[in-house]
Order: sequence, then C-alpha cells, then structure tokens
Amino acid sequence: MSRRLVLPVLADFVSATAGRNMTAVAYIAVILGVAMMVLLTTAPAYDATHHWVNALLWLCLAYFVFEWLVRLRHLGRQGRLWFYALSGAGLVDATGALAVPLALVCGVEPKTAWLLSILWVLKVVPGIPGLRQLRRVLVLESGPLLSVLVIFLMVVFLASVAEYYLERDVQPQTFGSVPAALWWAVVTLTTTGYGDVVPITPLGRIVAALVMISGLGVFGLWTGILATGFAAETRRDNFLKTWETVSKVPFFANLGPGAIADVTQMLRTMDLPPRTMIIRKGTRGDCMYFIAAGEVEVDLRDKKVKLDEGAFFGEMALLGNAVRGADVATTKVTRLLVLDLVDFRLLMARHPDLAQTIDAEAKRRELENR
Amino acid sequence: MSRRLVLPVLADFVSATAGRNMTAVAYIAVILGVAMMVLLTTAPAYDATHHWVNALLWLCLAYFVFEWLVRLRHLGRQGRLWFYALSGAGLVDATGALAVPLALVCGVEPKTAWLLSILWVLKVVPGIPGLRQLRRVLVLESGPLLSVLVIFLMVVFLASVAEYYLERDVQPQTFGSVPAALWWAVVTLTTTGYGDVVPITPLGRIVAALVMISGLGVFGLWTGILATGFAAETRRDNFLKTWETVSKVPFFANLGPGAIADVTQMLRTMDLPPRTMIIRKGTRGDCMYFIAAGEVEVDLRDKKVKLDEGAFFGEMALLGNAVRGADVATTKVTRLLVLDLVDFRLLMARHPDLAQTIDAEAKRRELENR
Amino acid sequence: MSRRLVLPVLADFVSATAGRNMTAVAYIAVILGVAMMVLLTTAPAYDATHHWVNALLWLCLAYFVFEWLVRLRHLGRQGRLWFYALSGAGLVDATGALAVPLALVCGVEPKTAWLLSILWVLKVVPGIPGLRQLRRVLVLESGPLLSVLVIFLMVVFLASVAEYYLERDVQPQTFGSVPAALWWAVVTLTTTGYGDVVPITPLGRIVAALVMISGLGVFGLWTGILATGFAAETRRDNFLKTWETVSKVPFFANLGPGAIADVTQMLRTMDLPPRTMIIRKGTRGDCMYFIAAGEVEVDLRDKKVKLDEGAFFGEMALLGNAVRGADVATTKVTRLLVLDLVDFRLLMARHPDLAQTIDAEAKRRELENR
Amino acid sequence: MSRRLVLPVLADFVSATAGRNMTAVAYIAVILGVAMMVLLTTAPAYDATHHWVNALLWLCLAYFVFEWLVRLRHLGRQGRLWFYALSGAGLVDATGALAVPLALVCGVEPKTAWLLSILWVLKVVPGIPGLRQLRRVLVLESGPLLSVLVIFLMVVFLASVAEYYLERDVQPQTFGSVPAALWWAVVTLTTTGYGDVVPITPLGRIVAALVMISGLGVFGLWTGILATGFAAETRRDNFLKTWETVSKVPFFANLGPGAIADVTQMLRTMDLPPRTMIIRKGTRGDCMYFIAAGEVEVDLRDKKVKLDEGAFFGEMALLGNAVRGADVATTKVTRLLVLDLVDFRLLMARHPDLAQTIDAEAKRRELENR
Repeated sequence: MSRRLVLPVLADFVSATAGRNMTAVAYIAVILGVAMMVLLTTAPAYDATHHWVNALLWLCLAYFVFEWLVRLRHLGRQGRLWFYALSGAGLVDATGALAVPLALVCGVEPKTAWLLSILWVLKVVPGIPGLRQLRRVLVLESGPLLSVLVIFLMVVFLASVAEYYLERDVQPQTFGSVPAALWWAVVTLTTTGYGDVVPITPLGRIVAALVMISGLGVFGLWTGILATGFAAETRRDNFLKTWETVSKVPFFANLGPGAIADVTQMLRTMDLPPRTMIIRKGTRGDCMYFIAAGEVEVDLRDKKVKLDEGAFFGEMALLGNAVRGADVATTKVTRLLVLDLVDFRLLMARHPDLAQTIDAEAKRRELENR
Repeated sequence: MSRRLVLPVLADFVSATAGRNMTAVAYIAVILGVAMMVLLTTAPAYDATHHWVNALLWLCLAYFVFEWLVRLRHLGRQGRLWFYALSGAGLVDATGALAVPLALVCGVEPKTAWLLSILWVLKVVPGIPGLRQLRRVLVLESGPLLSVLVIFLMVVFLASVAEYYLERDVQPQTFGSVPAALWWAVVTLTTTGYGDVVPITPLGRIVAALVMISGLGVFGLWTGILATGFAAETRRDNFLKTWETVSKVPFFANLGPGAIADVTQMLRTMDLPPRTMIIRKGTRGDCMYFIAAGEVEVDLRDKKVKLDEGAFFGEMALLGNAVRGADVATTKVTRLLVLDLVDFRLLMARHPDLAQTIDAEAKRRELENR
Repeated sequence: MSRRLVLPVLADFVSATAGRNMTAVAYIAVILGVAMMVLLTTAPAYDATHHWVNALLWLCLAYFVFEWLVRLRHLGRQGRLWFYALSGAGLVDATGALAVPLALVCGVEPKTAWLLSILWVLKVVPGIPGLRQLRRVLVLESGPLLSVLVIFLMVVFLASVAEYYLERDVQPQTFGSVPAALWWAVVTLTTTGYGDVVPITPLGRIVAALVMISGLGVFGLWTGILATGFAAETRRDNFLKTWETVSKVPFFANLGPGAIADVTQMLRTMDLPPRTMIIRKGTRGDCMYFIAAGEVEVDLRDKKVKLDEGAFFGEMALLGNAVRGADVATTKVTRLLVLDLVDFRLLMARHPDLAQTIDAEAKRRELENR
Repeated sequence: MSRRLVLPVLADFVSATAGRNMTAVAYIAVILGVAMMVLLTTAPAYDATHHWVNALLWLCLAYFVFEWLVRLRHLGRQGRLWFYALSGAGLVDATGALAVPLALVCGVEPKTAWLLSILWVLKVVPGIPGLRQLRRVLVLESGPLLSVLVIFLMVVFLASVAEYYLERDVQPQTFGSVPAALWWAVVTLTTTGYGDVVPITPLGRIVAALVMISGLGVFGLWTGILATGFAAETRRDNFLKTWETVSKVPFFANLGPGAIADVTQMLRTMDLPPRTMIIRKGTRGDCMYFIAAGEVEVDLRDKKVKLDEGAFFGEMALLGNAVRGADVATTKVTRLLVLDLVDFRLLMARHPDLAQTIDAEAKRRELENR
C-alpha cells in the first residue's frame, strides 16, 4: 500500500528533476552542500559535528549524481544525449556529479577534494532572473568595455614599471620585482588599497596619486558604459514582455499597430499567483489594471464581483477620487497589465477614444454601486 | 491663570504629536537621545557629565513613551488601534518606547541597555523626502539588482574557496578556513581592502586581481541599473506633482489634454512660505513663474502690485532684457509653476497661442510701467 | 620717460585687477603662494630656501591685499562697497588679505599662521568653468541626494552601535566606544577601508560585510541621481548657449520658432581665437560649420576666399567626399555653430528646404573651383 | 628554389608591416617583449632562464627597429617622411626602437635599460576599438570634467592643511609636513585607503569622514558626467556606421530621407567573416537580418538557397513562430543590418508599406517550402 503512495510522488520528482532547470530540492542541495563544505574547513565546528557534515555532503552529492543521470536518460530518450552532455548546462551537471568523486578516487585528501563542491553554485546560473539582459548589455557594449580594459592594463603596466624603478632600492622587500609592483598597481587602480605595499618616495607617491585618480576615471567610464547599455536594454526587455500581452487584450484590439506600439511602451506586465491582494481598500491608488489572463474578485460592500480576461479595474482612483474603494484579489494565476497614473494621462491625451471607454465604464460602475 | 495659558499649548502639542509623522520635538529628541547614547559609551566624557547624560536619556525616552501612548489613544478612538499597532510605524514607535525599559527590567547592564536607543533613528524614516521614489526604483529594478547580487555572491564563494586552497598552507592564521577567506573576498570585492587579510602567493594574487576587477564590474552594473531606474522615476515624480496644478491654472485651461500633458513635462512645481523673495531686482533671470495658489507682491518703482492665482510674472527677462526689473516676494503660502528659459522657448514654438498671450501681457505691462 | 611707460601699464593692471574675477597674475599668486606654504612645512627643503620662501609668501600676500583694496575702492566708487564686501567673493578676498596678518598679529607662530594661506585657493572657485551647471544639478536633485545622505547616516549609526556591542570586549582598544565604532563605520561604508579598525568576531564580520554591500548601494544611488541630473542639465546648458546664436544667423532666419528650437538642439557653439586652424586639408571631416560672428579664410589652390557672418563651410565633406578639400582658419575672434554629420542628416531629412540651399551652394562652389 | 618561396612571403610581411597599424607579429612582439621584461626583474626565474629572456628581448627589439625603418622608408617614398616621423605614431615607433639601445649605449645598467621596453605597450593604442569614441566623450565633456578635477584638488589641499594642523603634534612621523598630509588626502579622497597614514585625533577623524563622503560625491559626479557623454556618443556612433549601409540597401531605397533617418536609428551593423553561422535551427529568434553586402546560404530541408545583397532573412521568427526554421551561414565576408524584435514592431507600425513587403515575402517563402 505504501508503494502505491510513494511511487507516483517519486515519478513526479523524477520528471521535475529531468525537466526544469532548478527544482526547489536542487536549490536546497546547493545551499546545504556549500554550507557543509564551508563548515568542513572550520576547525572547531567541524570536529564537533563531522558525522552530520559528512553525511549531508554525501547526500547532496548523491542528489546531483542522480539529477545528472536522470537528465542524461531523459534527454537520451529524446535523442539529444550528446547535445545535452556537451552543452554548458550538461557540463556543469557533469562536473557537479563527478568532480568530487574523481578527486577522492585519485587519492586527493578528502578535505581538499570536497572543496570542489563549490562548483555546485554554477548550477544556479540559469536561474538568475536578469542574466540574459546583463549578457546582452555586455555583448552589445563589448567594444567600449574592451577599450577600457586595455586602458586599464596599460595604466597598470606603465605605473608598475615606473614604481618598481622608483621604489626598488628603498623597499626591496615589497617592490623588488615588476610582478610585485603589478600587484600594487592592480590593488591601487581598483581603489582597493590593502596597504601591504605602499610607495614611500616622493616621486613614487606622485605616480601613485596619478594612478588613483586614473582609477576614478576608469571606474567612471566603466559605469557610464554599463549604465548607457542598461537603459536601452531595460526599455527593450519591457517592450518585448508587454507587446504580446497587449495585442491579445480585447480592449486594445481595435487599435492600429502604431497605437499598440505606443500603448505598449506605457504598460508593465505583472504576474500574480492565486489569492493575492492587488488593491487594498482605503490606500491611495496611482495605477489601473487590465486583466490579460486569469480572474480577479472585487469585494464591494454587499456583493463580490468577478472580472476576467479583458476587463479593467482600479480606474476610479485615477479619475478623481484617489482612495481605493474596494479590495481586489486574484482567484487564479493572473497576468495583469499595469498602467501608471502618469501614463494614464498621456494615454487619455493621445487616444481620446480609449479614454471615453474607460470613462463610460467608470460612470456605469459608480451608478451601479451607489 | 497660568493654567489657562498652559492648557491650550499642551492640547496643541498633544494633537501635533498624535497627528503628524514627526514633530520638531520628535526630531530634537532623536538627535539628543542618540548623541547622549554615544556620549554614554565614551569613557572620560561620560564620567564628567553622567548626571546630564542620564537625565537627558530618560527625558527622551519619556517623550517617546508619551508619543506612543498619545498615538495609541488617538487612533484607538478612530477604531484603528490594531491597524496602527501592527503597522511599520506603530512597531517602530513601540520599540522606541519599550526596548530600553524592557532591557533594564530584564537585568541587562544599563550601558548596554541604552544602546537600544539607537533604534530611535528608525523614526526618521517616514520623514525622508525622496524615500518613496527610492523604494519604487528598488522595486521596479529588483530583477536586475537581484541578478547582480547573485553574481556577487557566486564570485565571493568561488574566489574564497580558490584563495583558501592557495593560501592556507602559507598563511594558516588568516586563510585557515573558508569563512576567513569569505571575509577576505567580501572586503576585496567591495574594493574596501582593509589589508588585514592579503594573499601573498603568486597564484593567490592573480585570483585576487581578478576579484578586484570583477568588483569594478559589479559596481558598474549596480550603478548603471540604479541610474537607469532613477532617471525614469524622476520624470514620473515630477509629472505627477505638476499635472494636478497645471490643469487648475486658468492660463492653461483652454488647452486640450494632449497639450496639457506636453506643458506639464516642461513645468516644475515650487512651494514657498510667506514673505519669501522670489525675484531680486538686477539679477539675471532664466525662468518665468505661474501662480497656482497664493499671492505675490511685485515691488515696482512707485507702487506695489499684487498678483494672485492664475497670474504669471518674470516673463520679461525671457523676452529680451535678461535682467530682472523688480523685486517679487510672496505674501502668503504660495505654489508656483516654474517655466525654464529652455522650455519657454519650446513652449513658444509648439503653442503659439500661449506665446501670444504672454507676449501681449508683457507689452501691456511695459507700457503701464513706463 | 620710464614713468610714461610704466604708468599706463600699471593703470591697465589695476583696472584688470578691479574688474575681472581672476587675472593671470592672480592665478600665479594662488599657485605660488600655496606651493610656498607647502614648502614651509617641509623641513629640509625649507631650511635650505627659507629666504626665498618667506619673500614669495609675503609677495603673494601683498598682491592679495592690493587686489582687495583696489576692488573695495573700485566698487566703493560705484556705491556698491557693502554689497561687494559682504558678498561671497568679497568675503573670500577679505579672508585672503587679512587671515594671515591677523594670525601673525595675534601672536600665532609664523609656520602655523601661514597655513591660513590655503584659503587663497577659494579665490579660484568663480573661475571653475562648469560650476554653475554642477550647482544647478545639486540644487534640483537635492531631495533624493538628501535622502541618500540620511540613509547613509542611519546605516552608519546602526552599524556602529551593533559593531561596538559585538567587538568591545574583544578589541577594547579600537572598538572601546561608539565614536570609535562610528569612525570604523564611515571608513567602511565609503569603501575606503584603512584597516586600522577591523572587526574580528564572526558576527562582527557579518555586520561589516552587510555595511560594505550597503556601501556599494549608497554609492550606486548617489551616482545614479547625479548622472540623471547631469544629463538633463547638459542638454539645457547647450540649448541656452546655442539658441541666441542660431536665431541671429541669416541662414536660419526664415525658420519658424518650432524649427529653430529643433535646429538649436542639433548645433553646438564653438568660440575660437584669431588665426586658429579649423579644417586641415586631407583629414576626414564629420561636421560642417556656420559662422555666427567673425571671419574665416579658406585657402584654395590658387586663391584665398574670405567668408564672414552667416556663411557656412565644410559641407562638402558631408555631401559625398569625406576628405577635406582645403585649409580653413579664423582671421578674427570667431563664433561658429558646429553641425555634426549625424545631425546634418537628420536636418536634411526634416528640413528639406535647408538641405536644398546647402546643396545648391555646395554645387556652385564645386563648379567655381574646378 | 627556397628563395622563390621565401621572397614573396618576405615582401608581403614587409608591406604589411609598412601599411597597417598593428600586424599580428607586432602584437606578439609587444606581449612577448613585456613578458620577458617582467621576467628579467624576477630574481629566481630570471637566473634560471636568462639566456632565453635575453634572446627574446633582443629579438623583439630587432623587430621594432625593423618596423620603424620599414615605415620610415615606405613613407619617405611617399614624401611624408617628416609628417610620419613627428606624428604621434612615428614618435612612439621611434621611442620603441631607440629608447633601450640609447640607454644601453649611455652606460645604464642593462636590467634598468630594458625597463624602457614597457614603452612598447604604447604601440597598442591605435588598435583599441572604441578609443575614438572615448576621446570624443572626454573632449566634449571636458568642461564639467575639469570642474570636478579642480574641486577634487581644492578638497585635497584644504583637507590636507587642516589634517596637518590637527595631527602634526600627535603623529609627527606621518603627518609631519603638508606633502605627507597631501598623500593622505589623495589616498582618502579616491577611497583607496591604504591605512599607512590614518588620523587619530577626534577632530582629525571628523575632517577625514567629510573627505571620504566628498570622495563619494566626486566619484558620483565624475561617473555621471561620463555616463551622460557616453550615452550621446554611442547613439551617434551607431547612427554614423549604419546610415551609409542603409541607404545602399535596395529594400530601403524608396524611402525618403526622413524615413531613412528613422530606420537607421533602429538598425545595427554587423560584419561577419565567411563560413560563420548566423542562425541555428531550433533556437529562439528575436531579430531579422538585411544583407548589405556579401552572401548567405540558407540550409533548407531539401535544398540550399543563396541570398545576396538586398535580401533579408530571419523574418519568420518575428511573424509568429519564434523558433528558427533553418540554419543560415555566410559564404563570403558579409555585412548585415540587424533589426531587433522591438524595432521590427515599431517599424511595422510606422512604415506599413515596408511591413507589407516583408509579410508578402514571408508568405511566399512559406508556400514554397511547404
């Protein structure tokens, strides 16, 4: 009997492991594994708890081996075994499963071998939300960023040779070779400034001051480039996410493509789980909502009204009375389009027909709920 | 007799305490309380003044207890006792009133118990001017900011394990465990660089250099994201503040909603107390003003002219003679809309009818004041 | 006879001193004075040269006293003595002239008294080019910047009390009082990280790590706000500078105010001294020029052609052949309007009539110079 | 016979050296030369390998001398000998060829003389991709950047004199002169914070805290200015690169100049070598491509189709089915114009005629490939 209960759960677990990038179990395994690895190196804490630490480490490793095998089998059935095995994700999975055992087999001391379990954190990468966006910025701005890197390296090399020449006789311990001076230059140009290697001759200090000021400049350029790239990318990303949704909402269906592009730039997509409060009665409102998918429930004084796909709500707070008149909550997984007060006004100004529709509906509702 | 004088002042004080977020007294109490707490820990200064310090600390505490009780009673009457008591502000007020006494009652040593009075600074939070704006930026950009945080953590963990492996034999004191290496990694990646833990092996230094350069990158991304978010939010905030005001000024009343949206983006709201000098005769002017509410007084050579709601002034400095011709000061609390020289020209270009009105009025005034 | 030669020069010098903010002599005096003051404190260097150093310091002081008196007399004649004496510039001048002598009279040791000559650097302030622009950014963005400052202070206070509590028993020397911990918090939150005060307990280090990461956040917000403000201010400043000039150039005179506003946003003003090379034959060109005031000389193969106010040149490099065909240099002080290649194309697209005029003139010139 | 083979290769090598800025050989020589110079100063490593190090250093030097002579001869023939010899590039080449030999001839110790070979890195400068862009930003924003520099210097001087006055009696070793305090001020204001010189008096620490906070401000201004400048420059650069190409693509030829300017702002140029995969079947697509020059091959199920100049591809992924249907690769050096999904939609909205053409072609292709 217990088998009947266990088997389907297990099958679900296996298919979740095979399919999605990171299950909740995988996140727990990564965090637990890394925490245990950290504990392993901490002398008094480990001595007191080494049974637990070792057990948990092996458990995490077992999970990652299991995950890798399940995925290999699953994708092998789809005929994409080698595609997966040699892709970035596949290699990360393989490393996570094999690195520690291989090291142990090769005779590496256990405490050292388990250090390799830090590679498990790489599994988190595909789950980082804005990573694709960051990568696009880095790729598109790679030209200027590369320039800054080359300038950075040139300053580092020129400064360290100058500093080596100026300081080598006074501080042979710390500026005794160009590599030592390079270390100083990187520490200084990034404005880290450990203070383990510090010039003491007057000329050496003047060179160092110039390097520090260059450090500010490099920093500024770097940030400026990334900020520029990011601004463009954010606009693009939001537009992409929203466009699809907008063109499916009946309310906007009659608009031409030019107007849809215009409206899309004003809206923001928001995905909500069931039973989430969207509007709380009595708070101040500064946006209205269109339902792109799902359903919400408006809690009026005497009755509950359900609104579904294509309906809008929250417009009254934008049309005079700024205080929300009712609670609104989702009943299912719901996708909303949010229209901010500012953009609501711009929309009213540029598309008077939409404005009239919203206005008429608001008046009808007010009459009804009196 | 003295009771007659004292009671209304006290009633005013109580109602101010109950109503507004932070009264002047509350600000003084926070600053004084924290200063005294700092003094309490400073050995020679405290020994000399401990009567004063103790008295002031108790006084501040008494005020915060009083404030909390007044608010509880006031909101209790409105039937919102629990709403307040469990809200953020209510919890901060409760902590400010109860933390120190509770610690003292529990037998904590007084010098340590009074340290909890640092929590009083949290009362300042709702009074911070641009906080709502900052919060919106952080919420809207939370996706990319989270990505950067995850990348930050991944670099910290990978680097510290690498550094632990490379340095543990050479510097067992400072790199003896992964937590110690984590400390080094955070200090380095934020470019703080205390210098208490510094790698000395060649490979360790190369890893450290990469971490520092990553630090610049993380910094740049972080700043870029915040800068982008901030630019959008500033525009939005200004638009919201100004829109209401613009649509009420008769001068702009005839404009359609599209034009009002356009004009709103050019104006800036400015609130002034009574008897404030707005324009000083003889200075160079680069903006004109519309009166949205209140009244101003123009000090001409031979007479004083009052202008009130809907009037405008300062336009002559934009129409040729850049030097202000008269002093202008407020007589009441006044809300002005400021139109900058640049935007004045764009306005003249895009809305020629407004331009004509301003021009005609300017000519009329010049004739009159000749 | 020598008196005849000297007197006019002296009169010129006096009037220049009275009138302009900073003469070349004043700049030299500031730099020389500060350099000598620095030398005064440097033991071996000063002992060798103290006669020179003292003489030069007194000379600089004499100049600043002279400057102050000349200005007082000059502005006294204009009846603006007190206006000047109490203005910022007047107070800086007075301090520069009186601080050191007063200190010497009061019996302060000379080496210390002369330190006050560092205040001479304040005289440079009105001469800083973009200062007005920076000040406007700081004023307009003062709200958010203040918020960040308050947040900065709150983090500093909360962190230092926490750190004091956690570290005071382990490191009584460095974390023995809250002021000492405040010093640590400022050093850490600004990511300076001297390393003179460093937490060593595990909890203390976790708090410190949070402070460092907050430091990045504060930094990012600060920069983001300033970057946003600066972008707006730069556009405004350029528009203001260019507008006046554009509307006076005959070539643009027929445009309506809307088009002028449009064109203004595309142009950049450039002021040049006489005999400056603007275009060098054979280089690649990516902009054309309109003469707003002054005169230029085009050096063709067989003749020299002069162009004055209202003419334009350099357009051929934008109309096909990218290489400059002739040297062009100014003959007088000249103000040019620069039209970049990008904006040239946008202009051609939006104002076809201007494009035709430029095209026709270019063709005429080509025929002529064949 | 070997002469027949060697000579043309040598001639090619000489002409490449004379003509292009940096050949692959030159890059290798720079990297190798600098690496050997670094090795030269590293005691144990050099002792073991000094024959190799010396040989390679002389080899690199020989190459740079050869390069300089070849260029002098080549440009001498074109009558531009002095133009080259005195230009920036010429001087860098001359320094690279002559600095080390001259130092050796003058009797400088070899290890020191070879340090001059660090100047070889300057040869890399003209090859940095975005350098022209960076330089334009620095030139255009030089006004505000200069202001920030002056403010930086003023803070440094004022703070160091104050700190010298406050700390000289307590720490005569580290704050014994104003130059020493200047060193502290620069280290602090750039937030480097070595920790070798740290104020210890309470007042000195308050001054230092203000300097650190100013450091954040200076940093923020610097970055803000650069970010602003960079945003403008990036748009300009992309526009310039793309404009030429767009106006030559037949697909856009019928558009008026206004529409071309509009389209140009949406496109991005991409240059690809032969046999590069552009689209991989089965991946998600978010852009389409126009061929400005060159040729691509589309790998359909049963045949290979070649597309050349003026054709477009990848549009299907933007018109409904987001997954790429075929592999596409270049066959020659190809220049593409990339149209992003976002801009594709804006284009469809603003230029319906272009949209129809793309739509019709997509339908035709779909029918054909069924």
